[in-house]
Amino acid sequence: MKQVDTLFINAHILTMDEEFHQYPTGALVVDGDSILAVGDEKELVSKYQGKQIVDCGGKALMPGLINAHTHVPMTLVRGLADDLRLDVWLMGYMMPVEREFVSPDFVRLGTSIACAEMIRSGVTSFADMYYFEEDVAKATAAAGMRALCGQTVLKFPSPDARSFEESLAYARDFISRWKDHPLIVPAVSPHAPYTCTAEILKACADLALEFDVPIHTHISETALEVENMRNEQGMPVVPYIKKQGLLEAKVLAAHCVHIDEGEMRTFLHYNTGVAHNPSSNLKLASGAAPVKKMLDIGLNVGIGTDGPASNNDLDMFEEIRLAAFLAKNTSGDPTALPARTVLAMDTRIGAQAMHIGHLTGSLAPGKRADI
Amino acid sequence: MKQVDTLFINAHILTMDEEFHQYPTGALVVDGDSILAVGDEKELVSKYQGKQIVDCGGKALMPGLINAHTHVPMTLVRGLADDLRLDVWLMGYMMPVEREFVSPDFVRLGTSIACAEMIRSGVTSFADMYYFEEDVAKATAAAGMRALCGQTVLKFPSPDARSFEESLAYARDFISRWKDHPLIVPAVSPHAPYTCTAEILKACADLALEFDVPIHTHISETALEVENMRNEQGMPVVPYIKKQGLLEAKVLAAHCVHIDEGEMRTFLHYNTGVAHNPSSNLKLASGAAPVKKMLDIGLNVGIGTDGPASNNDLDMFEEIRLAAFLAKNTSGDPTALPARTVLAMDTRIGAQAMHIGHLTGSLAPGKRADI
Repeated sequence: MKQVDTLFINAHILTMDEEFHQYPTGALVVDGDSILAVGDEKELVSKYQGKQIVDCGGKALMPGLINAHTHVPMTLVRGLADDLRLDVWLMGYMMPVEREFVSPDFVRLGTSIACAEMIRSGVTSFADMYYFEEDVAKATAAAGMRALCGQTVLKFPSPDARSFEESLAYARDFISRWKDHPLIVPAVSPHAPYTCTAEILKACADLALEFDVPIHTHISETALEVENMRNEQGMPVVPYIKKQGLLEAKVLAAHCVHIDEGEMRTFLHYNTGVAHNPSSNLKLASGAAPVKKMLDIGLNVGIGTDGPASNNDLDMFEEIRLAAFLAKNTSGDPTALPARTVLAMDTRIGAQAMHIGHLTGSLAPGKRADI
Repeated sequence: MKQVDTLFINAHILTMDEEFHQYPTGALVVDGDSILAVGDEKELVSKYQGKQIVDCGGKALMPGLINAHTHVPMTLVRGLADDLRLDVWLMGYMMPVEREFVSPDFVRLGTSIACAEMIRSGVTSFADMYYFEEDVAKATAAAGMRALCGQTVLKFPSPDARSFEESLAYARDFISRWKDHPLIVPAVSPHAPYTCTAEILKACADLALEFDVPIHTHISETALEVENMRNEQGMPVVPYIKKQGLLEAKVLAAHCVHIDEGEMRTFLHYNTGVAHNPSSNLKLASGAAPVKKMLDIGLNVGIGTDGPASNNDLDMFEEIRLAAFLAKNTSGDPTALPARTVLAMDTRIGAQAMHIGHLTGSLAPGKRADI
């Protein structure tokens, strides 16, 4: 009998692994922060002795949900300036308000509220992008959650930097200090191709490659963005960012509402992850991403709430439901994205999209015990 | 000082009347089952003396929400056969299961569960369509809720009738006995043009006109339905039902996903109400109804969950949120259906769509105290 920290027994276990293994009377063995074994209760109880035994009372035990794209401190600006166009909302309201009010304190408070909300809806990991990202990381780690924390870099002055060089220096400093944290994966976040220059995108790619950390960015959110890129650069958004070397890094691309099959295949080649944000895309009338097609091609597509200001909540079960419904209607096929698929998108596949699939997303030996 | 039953004080009152009057420190005067006055607290407290005084603690007081289209007993088949095509789901699973299991007991139990769920999400009134509708009415009245209860009539054998003549006789009997009930508005529900014959539609119209009760039916839910109607009758669905005299009655038409502007104008002429069901339409990939256009033209469009089997819940706040988001994306305009408009659709306008706008839907003197 091997001595371990915790034995979860009497659980209906959904592993959400590649084969969707389930154990109707299952057990999970946890030692330290990781899963040692998962399987049938009888078998595991005969092999492991837990210092602590948790009787799950026959309830479901599954991997924690993953919010693959958000801006958590925006809990503090939720409901501000609803029912507006994306450009008016972003440039006319959000960015000016943020420049005025966003501080390290704002970010820590907003993040703490967001973590409480997400824990309540079963989320254990999320991918963030904001300013003063080190304070997001601090509040997230204090809440015991796992996150990919992307420091925003853009061509305008921002709440935490007068220039992109300043943000980039902040990102370098943040990444170098948090690189080996057990819960936080630091990242760099060029905001979007249309709010960055080619030079910024290249610098971000270099930084991400230097430290082997992910890039978290917004790609092809609106048709206008794609149209402008075609007019100014003679190509759609994905070839453009590829040209800047961005895809050499581990990219998590949020939205991807308006990408074509060629762009999807480029993403597949570079193992680029996608974060689909159904509520936000509907609320801002951006369109509906071709999620079924992306999954059919083999892309890792996770699901995100986007920031609480464009959702207006952080409820992942609601987002999963909407992802399923929207894909059915967009593809004209009510059998598209059945329950099992969307749940995988929000666990294993979402973790893969965030480039942390080796750490979390399914209940498998060696992964962290995010349950 | 006039003596009244109940005085609600210290409330932020949203009347949801035509002018969207609000009283930040408001009071509501209720006598019997009806509203006697609504307005500023100071003014009303000086005029009315309540046998009971309810201090609302500064919270919002608004009209009860309205679920404008549902099949409440289907709480008992929720989650059965998800992720399927509408025709496979309806003809292959739902109707056979219903023929096997639906009884007066099934209906009463399912309705009671649904009423509990709806009360929890702030709903006070709903429009139902099912079998053994008198048992729906009994369970609804027992729960203290208001409902338009439509007895289903269709050309196939159903759980409560071997033929349409039997359902029609049931409907006549039900309507004649419940016509003056304080909470229940009995109605007749030809299921849909494609599940009825012209003869059935005519008979239902005659019955509704004879008793001056509403008709609750499904109209143009899928593109296939419209295509079949065009092929078989040489016209879309609305002109066809008009030809059968259906629109002479007070009709509540659910779905209306695939109607054109001419059909909308026909509805306007006949004061036909529409029930929009965003979750159900997405789940079954039926499409997205042109809600903004219908409202612009002046139609009364309410919001419904549809039955719990095609939603899969009865949460009206979720449905309101989705109605707003979906309309924004469908019209390509994020300013479409702002919060105030969708809330009106789910209160005053929804009541008008159900032809019970004189009874409920806003906080106004003379209306029932559905709060």
